[in-house]
Amino acid sequence: MFIGFSEAETFLRNCRDAVIITHRNPDGDCIGAGFGLKDILEQLGVRSRVVCHDEFPKRYDFITETGAGEDFEPQTVIAVDIADTKLMGRYEEIYGDKVQLCIDHHISNKNYAEKTLLHGEATAACEIIYSLAEFMGVRITRHCAMCLYTGIATDSGCFKYDCTTPRAHEIAADMMRRYDINFARINRYMFDVKSEGRMKLESRINELMELHLGGKLAIIAVTQKMMSDMGIEMEELEGFAPLTIQLENTEVGILMRERPDGVYKCSFRSAYDVNVSAICQELGGGGHAKASGCTVEGDLESAKKLLISAVERALG
Amino acid sequence: MFIGFSEAETFLRNCRDAVIITHRNPDGDCIGAGFGLKDILEQLGVRSRVVCHDEFPKRYDFITETGAGEDFEPQTVIAVDIADTKLMGRYEEIYGDKVQLCIDHHISNKNYAEKTLLHGEATAACEIIYSLAEFMGVRITRHCAMCLYTGIATDSGCFKYDCTTPRAHEIAADMMRRYDINFARINRYMFDVKSEGRMKLESRINELMELHLGGKLAIIAVTQKMMSDMGIEMEELEGFAPLTIQLENTEVGILMRERPDGVYKCSFRSAYDVNVSAICQELGGGGHAKASGCTVEGDLESAKKLLISAVERALG
Repeated sequence: MFIGFSEAETFLRNCRDAVIITHRNPDGDCIGAGFGLKDILEQLGVRSRVVCHDEFPKRYDFITETGAGEDFEPQTVIAVDIADTKLMGRYEEIYGDKVQLCIDHHISNKNYAEKTLLHGEATAACEIIYSLAEFMGVRITRHCAMCLYTGIATDSGCFKYDCTTPRAHEIAADMMRRYDINFARINRYMFDVKSEGRMKLESRINELMELHLGGKLAIIAVTQKMMSDMGIEMEELEGFAPLTIQLENTEVGILMRERPDGVYKCSFRSAYDVNVSAICQELGGGGHAKASGCTVEGDLESAKKLLISAVERALG
Repeated sequence: MFIGFSEAETFLRNCRDAVIITHRNPDGDCIGAGFGLKDILEQLGVRSRVVCHDEFPKRYDFITETGAGEDFEPQTVIAVDIADTKLMGRYEEIYGDKVQLCIDHHISNKNYAEKTLLHGEATAACEIIYSLAEFMGVRITRHCAMCLYTGIATDSGCFKYDCTTPRAHEIAADMMRRYDINFARINRYMFDVKSEGRMKLESRINELMELHLGGKLAIIAVTQKMMSDMGIEMEELEGFAPLTIQLENTEVGILMRERPDGVYKCSFRSAYDVNVSAICQELGGGGHAKASGCTVEGDLESAKKLLISAVERALG
């Protein structure tokens, strides 16, 4: 059932001992939303714990340093930024059919929760949570503001992409004025800082870019072997997908990352008007019109062929 | 003399036949401010012309397509985003001592104009012009909004850097709501799109990065020969400076670009707390605390030595 702010407020004010689930391969939005919501619940006197199938990347230490929460038997199950229980990883089996409240901004949300606060037009789940806190009249902490800023900034490419709403800018202005957040340092860690290994890998993967369909499709594929040669973790490639649409004529870009189990995690980006969410849904994935993902099994060459033909159909 | 909005309004409403000077090596802020102000003057019934020592880079075509203005004998001289008449290039001799109104956001402004509207805290000259238009009650055009958005976005690194003000976010929100600007496409052209040549050069210049002072200083030097080998123009390197501070431990980054006359144009970036404006002023340049510039003559190695010792002194 889809609900509004008022019902979400009632739910949060009356819940207790909540587990907050974030999605696997966690990004700034689900981590920011998870820990931001934990801060808000704390102010309501509700204890909570943030869980994730994967470890939180180190660059989010300034968010996670407050701790994921103590161990207790949850009485409440909340999911943030999760469109589909499949994205919960090992928590799908434990909590997949028990989610009482889901706060999400993906229009592809599968409506799996008892109550879903879905704002499909929002830049990020963090934007919804900030608006909800405002609606509830909860004064958030500076740490909470930094969590929520991080989600908005990362999901919008620092206010760069189409999905950026006027509201996202207004929230950023409000956070800067009211909470004196160190946004430049956050952005530096989210967008600019990298290891020497990654810098070198960036040079290498740019060289790996393959153009298909007359240059309208660019594919960058990074195998496990390459990652191990470069001494880098898969998580360090999280911000690479936008590089696939850096050339002016590219319509669709795909970053293929081989997981340890040999499956390719494919991150799609659309430079202009192609809806990559539709392409990814066809391949069993999903996401946003301009940024979506799916996984593809099989060897590299056949995986590429599958992707190329799917994009070719979409380009029409 | 420093003036406020009210006096600037009186000036603009009573001037005629204005030339608007932008700085050499033009960037998004001076081009956006120049053409944005031209749009505003047009609505006030004042004809104007935007001039620049250099050609406007092609990626600003969506701004300059309305035309720089017809040829006439100027009765009014306005400078935008110019802290020092030296930055006018060949227009310094013609107009340097005749500037009646300067609109600028550089605290290093030399106060060379008859009247100066200086907001040292503003993200961009375009932020000041937007606020001025609002103050005057002029309804700007969509083209004007796109000009002014471009200046704010480029000078703030798309709202990423310390110099971003809450006001910059509020203006962006306002522009998105009222003028339906195509901000994602603007940002794509300003920050993401490049030629294959530039993509390859980026890989090459990352390889060229030299670390000094225990990694606290990173220098990337690009010579004329390298540019010609890669078939690329100096202007295409405009956005490279942030790459110099992409490594986590770097405090100061310098991009050195050799001009056709052999002089090195040096763009400084500060990652954290070092004030690079002070360093550049010592070397005869200037700018902002986190982004400044200067020029250095001499051969590459001695130019580097000069820069390294200046940074070493600043690091203390």
